[in-house]
Amino acid sequence: MTPHPRLLLRTQALNPLLRRSPSSSPWPPPLCRPRRRLAACASAAGVEDAVVGFVTGKRKATEVAHAVWRSIVRKGDRVVDATCGNGNDTLALLKMVADERGQGRVYGIDIQDSAIESTSCFLNMAVDDNRERELVKLFPVCHSRMEEIVPKDSPVRLVAFNLGYLPGGDKTVITVPRTTELALQAASRLLSSGGLISVLVYIGHPGGRDELDVVESFASSLPIDTWVSCKLQMLNRPIAPVLIVLNKK
Amino acid sequence: MTPHPRLLLRTQALNPLLRRSPSSSPWPPPLCRPRRRLAACASAAGVEDAVVGFVTGKRKATEVAHAVWRSIVRKGDRVVDATCGNGNDTLALLKMVADERGQGRVYGIDIQDSAIESTSCFLNMAVDDNRERELVKLFPVCHSRMEEIVPKDSPVRLVAFNLGYLPGGDKTVITVPRTTELALQAASRLLSSGGLISVLVYIGHPGGRDELDVVESFASSLPIDTWVSCKLQMLNRPIAPVLIVLNKK
Repeated sequence: MTPHPRLLLRTQALNPLLRRSPSSSPWPPPLCRPRRRLAACASAAGVEDAVVGFVTGKRKATEVAHAVWRSIVRKGDRVVDATCGNGNDTLALLKMVADERGQGRVYGIDIQDSAIESTSCFLNMAVDDNRERELVKLFPVCHSRMEEIVPKDSPVRLVAFNLGYLPGGDKTVITVPRTTELALQAASRLLSSGGLISVLVYIGHPGGRDELDVVESFASSLPIDTWVSCKLQMLNRPIAPVLIVLNKK
Repeated sequence: MTPHPRLLLRTQALNPLLRRSPSSSPWPPPLCRPRRRLAACASAAGVEDAVVGFVTGKRKATEVAHAVWRSIVRKGDRVVDATCGNGNDTLALLKMVADERGQGRVYGIDIQDSAIESTSCFLNMAVDDNRERELVKLFPVCHSRMEEIVPKDSPVRLVAFNLGYLPGGDKTVITVPRTTELALQAASRLLSSGGLISVLVYIGHPGGRDELDVVESFASSLPIDTWVSCKLQMLNRPIAPVLIVLNKK
């Protein structure tokens, strides 16, 4: 039996041999098609619009997450997109941190080369300003290794996770509980005081519920004197994604 | 064994014999002391302030609930406070529906006479305008009987529940799963399209978890084509109240 790529990767160096070449990639690069408007729309709602929209079924948990990020993240901040996917969150985060002095950074991570390529392609298309585009640093590694990527002296304001499989990609390649737990632990160490870990857990695929259990267990174990852990979920849509937000005091 | 007062009450007429006289009441009327500023503060936050404050530990679930109500309820609406308690929610709701034409109504319900008296006292003190004060109608009955109170031709925009025991009152007198479930069913029938049922479930007392189970089960059973059910809770504060919001499409 072939080990899960994430587990393989954890024993290897950065930029490992597992990286697929674009020509061998089995997936289409879906976000090379123009999706600027969608990305902008997903990240544009204020918290009020997003939350009231969520409870009335008009907005998604992703929009609540983006709205909460926007209320916390400032220009010039350093943030981590721990699961780049197709790059929607990466772009939203870039727009939040991009500053004239060029100090903002988005460290984008995904174990799937296809996701890194898709994100890179999407950013190249959506960001006209090269200086701004260069504020995003992309790494095709497991998110449990984020501490090897982010400079030690860089306090991080936000670490964002979108757990599950790559939309439009191979649904058998999913984030898994063991490395997600390690990634959450790493994120909790990297985070600055006042920062957020945001976890959107997709649970409609096999293994999704196990991963939710791990995230909830981690969130519940955080000490109340230094962390606020909360969860937002739909109750009558059992496979709707669950948003868990962890604030370091 | 003496039956629970709520169960007794369900077999009796409105304004039943169970009502205690003020002189025999064992509780102090805590909200006869000025608490206008507190009540105003609890209901004043916008959704953005309340939600961002909640995820960063600066605001309570009650404030999120009030902020969501304010985004849904309009002047002239009819609303139900299904558990008056000490009247904080009743006052907040009155401020949301009070209109110059005098059409707004708050139907305030509590099985405990002490709660109705406390609420009445609080409103008399906090509301200077008699015409406005008269928009609140108080009923010392079980909330499962709300359909006997609200006029049949009155669509209701919001039904608010604060489940648990009366703050400052007898902690052995609590809302209980069976009648809470009946009350939720009644609320779902009374509610107009676009309206909300808001349930804040306190779980720190014996029986609180059982009641949460019943509320979650009810919320989960609502059909997705006509309802949106969602839940907001703290994960690392196991006895923090849980907010469940049910929107009728």
